[in-house]
Amino acid sequence: MSRILFSLILLFSLAQAHDTLPSWNEGTSKKNIIAYVTAVTDPKSPDFIPVVDRIAVFDNDGTLWSEQPAYFQLFFAMDRVKALASEHPEWKTTQPFQAVLENDMKTLMASGMEGIGKIVMTTHAGTTDKEFDAIVTEWIKTAKHPTKNVHYTELVFQPMLELLTYLRANDFKTFIVSGGGIDFMRPFASEAYGIPSDQIVGSKLEVKYENKQIVRLPKLRFNDDKEDKPVGIHYHIGKHPVAAFGNSDGDFQMLEYTEANKKHKTLQLYVHHTDEKREWAYDRKSHIGKFDKGLDYANEHNWTVVDMKNEWKVVYPFELKK
Amino acid sequence: MSRILFSLILLFSLAQAHDTLPSWNEGTSKKNIIAYVTAVTDPKSPDFIPVVDRIAVFDNDGTLWSEQPAYFQLFFAMDRVKALASEHPEWKTTQPFQAVLENDMKTLMASGMEGIGKIVMTTHAGTTDKEFDAIVTEWIKTAKHPTKNVHYTELVFQPMLELLTYLRANDFKTFIVSGGGIDFMRPFASEAYGIPSDQIVGSKLEVKYENKQIVRLPKLRFNDDKEDKPVGIHYHIGKHPVAAFGNSDGDFQMLEYTEANKKHKTLQLYVHHTDEKREWAYDRKSHIGKFDKGLDYANEHNWTVVDMKNEWKVVYPFELKK
Repeated sequence: MSRILFSLILLFSLAQAHDTLPSWNEGTSKKNIIAYVTAVTDPKSPDFIPVVDRIAVFDNDGTLWSEQPAYFQLFFAMDRVKALASEHPEWKTTQPFQAVLENDMKTLMASGMEGIGKIVMTTHAGTTDKEFDAIVTEWIKTAKHPTKNVHYTELVFQPMLELLTYLRANDFKTFIVSGGGIDFMRPFASEAYGIPSDQIVGSKLEVKYENKQIVRLPKLRFNDDKEDKPVGIHYHIGKHPVAAFGNSDGDFQMLEYTEANKKHKTLQLYVHHTDEKREWAYDRKSHIGKFDKGLDYANEHNWTVVDMKNEWKVVYPFELKK
Repeated sequence: MSRILFSLILLFSLAQAHDTLPSWNEGTSKKNIIAYVTAVTDPKSPDFIPVVDRIAVFDNDGTLWSEQPAYFQLFFAMDRVKALASEHPEWKTTQPFQAVLENDMKTLMASGMEGIGKIVMTTHAGTTDKEFDAIVTEWIKTAKHPTKNVHYTELVFQPMLELLTYLRANDFKTFIVSGGGIDFMRPFASEAYGIPSDQIVGSKLEVKYENKQIVRLPKLRFNDDKEDKPVGIHYHIGKHPVAAFGNSDGDFQMLEYTEANKKHKTLQLYVHHTDEKREWAYDRKSHIGKFDKGLDYANEHNWTVVDMKNEWKVVYPFELKK
């Protein structure tokens, strides 16, 4: 009886090991991840981390889903400008709205942070939280990516979904810490990533409580990027993460802060966009997701850098169905 | 066989029902709580709430633990002034520090928000997050309440601990939403209430990321009180609560906002401090935990108001050991 039981457990363990991160090719990154998780979850290991301290933080754009040729949230804002254009005839001749209506990305981009900020504020503020949630939910369901021609949530990274699942199966609490808007992510993050709304940290507009509702105001309250990612982690999570995942210099401080956790063994992982065929290839000179200082530091510090082209069997979930 | 199983299940159910909220006397409040939880967790009930939407928010001071004769965080600040006094000989002759060193509560209180603000900023800022955490942790372990002469965490409310446990057993996610300092609560809330640091919303100082650390600055960033409680809930939780628990007018907007949840059946509960013997009796005219407008509204709107004196069998956990 006990021999049968032992065989069953062995078979089950082998099956599990086989199922761990199936979309990751055998290689350095997969090895590093599994070695880390194994070490910190084994009660007999000197590196064991109590469950309460297993905090893992993930950037979103470029780390959990794609971010090219522009942040998806910008496409959302542009689609909103188009949807609202009939109420604003003056936009036809007013920049940067005119550029959006004419699909003139060059002029829009040339309008810089001021112009893009105007587009974002106009389309993200002035509603209640519930109205905005409904608008994003509808957009996510219907809008399609300009070149990939699939829904945006189809452009999440299958290997990262497996990594999230693997970490949660090992009692890590997974958080998003993104420069993107917190209320833009909340409507889809639960279904797309299995991450509930209270485990999302992101950039925020000012809001006020009025007539028993939350009303969104056209003023940035918090820009969750660079050195403010650790600040956002402090405010929302209140614990020092042990594992951090990003893809750009904007995530550098989050990974650096995680590495500075002296209490526990830590893991830092950068997704390197090297796949010009299945996804996009960009790093040091990209305007979106610039990965330069972080890449150098990662190489010097033995952080894990995922070579997307060679280490990921598939990039997107829909490839599995082919 | 099936009859034995049935009997066992019946016995187990009866035992469970008997164990629900054992420190609550049979009465309106206990009945309201159990009726609500039963209705919203029964999949066959028209009031059923999916697990993902079972968000319950609790005020801390006066709701989960006592708050008299002053907020416990003020006693912490005063103890810190005394601990730091040898490094600041000038405090002996500088108000409001002198008042603290001389235990002159009258002069301290007369210094108003400006004076008390000075005491709080001096004792809460200027450290890293980890240093502050260690200071609070040590204080919580050693300091004693001036009149009750027990550790502060012994002054949590046993019936509310049972309520937290009962809600969590029914798949509610429990959050603290307090005017108190978020970093003052985090070091003990996990042990005292079973609420992890990322499920705490509170008032915040500004912080900055510097030398791979979080440094606390002497400037208030967010005052999590009154109409900013719904704002804090929006930022941290990102979902509309279905159950809210408070004790004062400072919690009114949080309960009002929860009542305004049109998607689900909701519960609003106020703890009314009516027990001058075991705890304290105060409401409409109290400087701490003023309960006036909220009490009227609660009575008009059929919110649950707990008569602490008559509805709680015990107030503090240590009474159970007697």
